[in-house]
Amino acid sequence: MSILRYFNWNHKNKTISFIDQSLLPLQEKIRTFKDYRELANAIRHLVVRGAPAIGIAGGYGVAIASYHEKADNIQELRNMLSHVIEDLSQTRPTAVNLFWALKRISNIVNDEEIISIDEMREEITDEAIKIDNEEFELGVKLGKIGSEIIPANCIALTHCNAGGLATSGMGSALSVFFYAREAGKNIKVYVDETRPLLQGGRLTTYELMKWGIDCELICDNMAGMVMNTKKVDVIITGCDRVASNGDTANKIGTYSLSVLSKYHNIPMYIACPISTIDFELKSGDEIPIEERNADEVTSFRSERIAPFNTAVYNPAFDITPAENISGFITEEGIITPPYKENLKKLKIIWQKRKERFK
Amino acid sequence: MSILRYFNWNHKNKTISFIDQSLLPLQEKIRTFKDYRELANAIRHLVVRGAPAIGIAGGYGVAIASYHEKADNIQELRNMLSHVIEDLSQTRPTAVNLFWALKRISNIVNDEEIISIDEMREEITDEAIKIDNEEFELGVKLGKIGSEIIPANCIALTHCNAGGLATSGMGSALSVFFYAREAGKNIKVYVDETRPLLQGGRLTTYELMKWGIDCELICDNMAGMVMNTKKVDVIITGCDRVASNGDTANKIGTYSLSVLSKYHNIPMYIACPISTIDFELKSGDEIPIEERNADEVTSFRSERIAPFNTAVYNPAFDITPAENISGFITEEGIITPPYKENLKKLKIIWQKRKERFK
Repeated sequence: MSILRYFNWNHKNKTISFIDQSLLPLQEKIRTFKDYRELANAIRHLVVRGAPAIGIAGGYGVAIASYHEKADNIQELRNMLSHVIEDLSQTRPTAVNLFWALKRISNIVNDEEIISIDEMREEITDEAIKIDNEEFELGVKLGKIGSEIIPANCIALTHCNAGGLATSGMGSALSVFFYAREAGKNIKVYVDETRPLLQGGRLTTYELMKWGIDCELICDNMAGMVMNTKKVDVIITGCDRVASNGDTANKIGTYSLSVLSKYHNIPMYIACPISTIDFELKSGDEIPIEERNADEVTSFRSERIAPFNTAVYNPAFDITPAENISGFITEEGIITPPYKENLKKLKIIWQKRKERFK
Repeated sequence: MSILRYFNWNHKNKTISFIDQSLLPLQEKIRTFKDYRELANAIRHLVVRGAPAIGIAGGYGVAIASYHEKADNIQELRNMLSHVIEDLSQTRPTAVNLFWALKRISNIVNDEEIISIDEMREEITDEAIKIDNEEFELGVKLGKIGSEIIPANCIALTHCNAGGLATSGMGSALSVFFYAREAGKNIKVYVDETRPLLQGGRLTTYELMKWGIDCELICDNMAGMVMNTKKVDVIITGCDRVASNGDTANKIGTYSLSVLSKYHNIPMYIACPISTIDFELKSGDEIPIEERNADEVTSFRSERIAPFNTAVYNPAFDITPAENISGFITEEGIITPPYKENLKKLKIIWQKRKERFK
């Protein structure tokens, strides 16, 4: 199995396989599922994680159920699959992509024009594969479009994990590095470890090393020194949510990076599909910041780091103001300032796309 | 034992006691030594750490040996103590303060005017206590002088551990916070955890909590967001070495903080005794940066964090340019720009002080 495709559908056995992310980076174990209950558990226990990946897994979950759960006629199949969809939607209640994927599958389950069991199974499987492929193609597009801003000899820096493990194999920021290398460019990536959960140290290093891309892991507090002494050409991160004025919520530490990049005159790009842009939000002020548990900072796995009862401030995200962002790498091209006008143009495209699955 | 005095000399039993720092912050265990070999081992195994603290421990090590090791006459005592000094000087070969403290004790051991065993023991003990007291008073001075820049209601941020555990109980930056609180000021301190070795999370939180100073632990990458959203008034850190132009080497991450502080218009001070200024160095360019082992970044205690064979860049220090520093808090007052001129004035004071112990 190649890391370029995260999900592997077996047409013969009607099973879905993917790497157990809860064991990465120290152990590479492929898990294969034909029981949707086991897959639901895998989603619950972060064997698969990242919003787009969870959505894809949900789609495949219904597909395996359609083949391996008992149903003697089309109506029994429809009833059973409705339960399966309900079960799967309970696994990670905040995963928007999961609901969206299950809605697409649900439209097929409820399609009265489908009258045979075999047809239903095939249509569901096709849709699950389509969701997977769409996500993959999105990563490919972001990567190819983004790679154009990468100079022939490039030192880059990234934060957190904007890679393929959270999607369908390519990701956003990491896809840019991949396609820059594919285009024959010489690229080296400094990887922020990204405290507290160390997604950079655990996952980004893993993916870049799999791809054979030269990378060096640093602690987050080293980024300033690296920018100052290592001739960094560009900073690229993914993001969680973009307001209509270009203010961007991403993993905590992205804001600090943006200030450092400005000070050192290094361009900073955000790689994201346009589905990440929330046109309802006027600015970053309207994005709520999730504060997470103190344990994430005071402990590492079984190891306690800080004194008992230490007060902790643990915001999961921060807001990078639009003015600190050189551009957004999207599947519709690279969006540069003025963002209010230029992001608005994407709104129409996005609305049309959304309507397809209402 | 109060955390305000790190070392506790027992006049009756002729023993020296201090907290085992290798067990902090989770366990507070006082270790008491009367065998200098055990003390030497304690230095080796980081039971006591921090250059000034190691120097003090060395002095007390000779003192306990003078009472508890066998010597039948003054000449035997001198010979024995010379061996002890030699043994202690081998514990941490790069600790300048240790050599300096042992030199002071050595001057007494070699003083031909001392003719009785009891007199020798007392003189050595007095000198060890004096070294301890001088270090303590230095911390008190830095704290009192520095506290004057702290506003009545202050939100501060610090990095690494510039506290009493590395010295004689007060430290540099942390002493400023202590005396600001003593002066009735309302102070809250955000503490960078300071990857990779987490001195902030492990030690600074411990000391501030002991003192009852309000503090909140953050990951290093949260400092920018905290500055942007929490109305931070001042940033104070300690330092390892200052060049004659004011460029300052300190724990990795200090440079990033200085850039962030400038962007947010927050003053940044370095608290340090003038012994830290290296007048031989023209600028920070002449300060070599120690690169440390990859394991510090890729593992935490028994837990491996990153993939095997991950390349790591792990500089232990960075250089903050003088232009990013609002002032130096020293025992001779607060030094502000222009640094070349104003630091030079301290050179004469420092040279006079050094001559006392040649």
